[in-house]
Amino acid sequence: MRKIVIDTKGADQGGEMMIKGAALAVASQPDLSVLLVGDTDFIRTECEKHEMPMDRVEILEAPEEITNYDDPADAVFHKTESSMLRGLLTLSQQDQLIGMITAGNTGVLIASCVRYLSRKERVRPALAAVLPNQDGSFTCLVDTGATIDCPAATLLHFAQLGTEFMRDTYRIESPRVGLLSNGAEETKGNKAVKEAHQLLKNAESINFVGNVEGNIALTGVCDVLVCDGFAGNQVLKVTEGTATRMITDIVKYAKRNQSAEIMELVGHLMGVYDIGSLGGGIILGCSKPVIKIRGNAGEAAVVNTAQMLLNIYDNKQIFDSAKNYI
Amino acid sequence: MRKIVIDTKGADQGGEMMIKGAALAVASQPDLSVLLVGDTDFIRTECEKHEMPMDRVEILEAPEEITNYDDPADAVFHKTESSMLRGLLTLSQQDQLIGMITAGNTGVLIASCVRYLSRKERVRPALAAVLPNQDGSFTCLVDTGATIDCPAATLLHFAQLGTEFMRDTYRIESPRVGLLSNGAEETKGNKAVKEAHQLLKNAESINFVGNVEGNIALTGVCDVLVCDGFAGNQVLKVTEGTATRMITDIVKYAKRNQSAEIMELVGHLMGVYDIGSLGGGIILGCSKPVIKIRGNAGEAAVVNTAQMLLNIYDNKQIFDSAKNYI
Repeated sequence: MRKIVIDTKGADQGGEMMIKGAALAVASQPDLSVLLVGDTDFIRTECEKHEMPMDRVEILEAPEEITNYDDPADAVFHKTESSMLRGLLTLSQQDQLIGMITAGNTGVLIASCVRYLSRKERVRPALAAVLPNQDGSFTCLVDTGATIDCPAATLLHFAQLGTEFMRDTYRIESPRVGLLSNGAEETKGNKAVKEAHQLLKNAESINFVGNVEGNIALTGVCDVLVCDGFAGNQVLKVTEGTATRMITDIVKYAKRNQSAEIMELVGHLMGVYDIGSLGGGIILGCSKPVIKIRGNAGEAAVVNTAQMLLNIYDNKQIFDSAKNYI
Repeated sequence: MRKIVIDTKGADQGGEMMIKGAALAVASQPDLSVLLVGDTDFIRTECEKHEMPMDRVEILEAPEEITNYDDPADAVFHKTESSMLRGLLTLSQQDQLIGMITAGNTGVLIASCVRYLSRKERVRPALAAVLPNQDGSFTCLVDTGATIDCPAATLLHFAQLGTEFMRDTYRIESPRVGLLSNGAEETKGNKAVKEAHQLLKNAESINFVGNVEGNIALTGVCDVLVCDGFAGNQVLKVTEGTATRMITDIVKYAKRNQSAEIMELVGHLMGVYDIGSLGGGIILGCSKPVIKIRGNAGEAAVVNTAQMLLNIYDNKQIFDSAKNYI
């Protein structure tokens, strides 16, 4: 039995969605159990409603909620009764817990991960997204919005976190690291990117493949794509905006031409390009994986990210045991 | 007769493409004439090949070429025999010339515009793109890659340039200005963006509508979208990459399902989302409009941007004469 922590508070759609997602995840994974953190009575009622097998559920009472108005520096020390902080603390204390899912405030989450799950003193974790490429491979985009202003040293650190993650969980021996820039040449980029290019080129532990431009970011040219959180946020959101726009255009075209074939295509595209439901951001640099789903996520995101936590855990176990033979 | 300058050098496909584009533009616009800058003999031969009406062509000899290896600070003072610099100088001197098109090195072009066409001492122009929104309106994205590191004051300056351009050429009375950021709240953004938010909020000449996230950048929420050249380059290239990827996926799907209807859709989408041929970047902050097409552009880009220069000129004339009645 593998057990994950689910923060039932902090989602736009409320705790009902999170618990429904947890019930669906448990139903689809025979050896998954969950620790649900939040209001005990509410959780019990919702579990019953969604036919959750109660022998695979544990409940942890947490009366407080982290909201989007909470200040990270303040909340991390004063909202210790919140579902997010209680969940993270418990995750850090119990060996049997393999990871956590939350839809709550990103800033507070990062600060809380630093407090409870940081592997090294004062090392800031990164918020990464594992994105499917056109060729079927995956690229780990790091950072996607947790750290907005990044000096070159932080970008190097992101490269290290991304390399480790793709090696341990995707089992890529020497992950290729690209640096997001506005041109392929090493002279292109803002000040931090130009400096980071030199650091990455000289870092022995990094398989640096050079600058990568936005138009080829998700074609499979690299396994890890490094950028500051501002640029990473643009990559994610512009991709989403463009996909949404094209799908809307195609729907209009299908209606105008009364084409059932094209409406079927729309269904296909919505499955492939629905970034919102595909997964969540994963916090790298912690002693255990924590996944942040969007505030406006639906239950599919809970199911998908529960699966992701299981995959990370299983691959890491395989990798760790394989290392014993090397 | 309205006359534009065309730099025949600097394009990846060579001068033949530029001159073919010029001939197509002249053929489609009865009152357009061109000043072609480059190697006189070569231009004559190509004009003949493409059946250019020679009474609407003037040739300006320029033996040197600006390459992508030229350093802007150096080239702007030493490559004065180049087609780009000769073209810009002539544009600045002759009233009858209404604008210029070039595919050459962006850095050198910006530096040369500062030297020859700047309206104010030491004010750096911006490279903008006018992008079609989903709702049929247009948004002027500024900057798209000319100025990579931008303090807040530069972002305010971009807002002013974009406002003026959309007012004068698109005749929007009070253009709505958005600031690209990683969140809607004014506390979101990198250091420069957060400072720029305050400057824009307090600028009386700017109709500031707040931060705009990447997923809604091109939905029509603002007429001018301000960002540094690094982020603007991501917006352009990620949009292009996503559109290209989706079209490739749709082609595969159409082949798999042997659907002629979907192949027709592909033709439609390629027309709408082919950013490469749609136009070029326009340099704002000059005394006359200069359009930079991509190095790898084809002749359609020359035709489209010649049309754009005519539109800018005509709208500006209408606007200037209308102002006399206000």
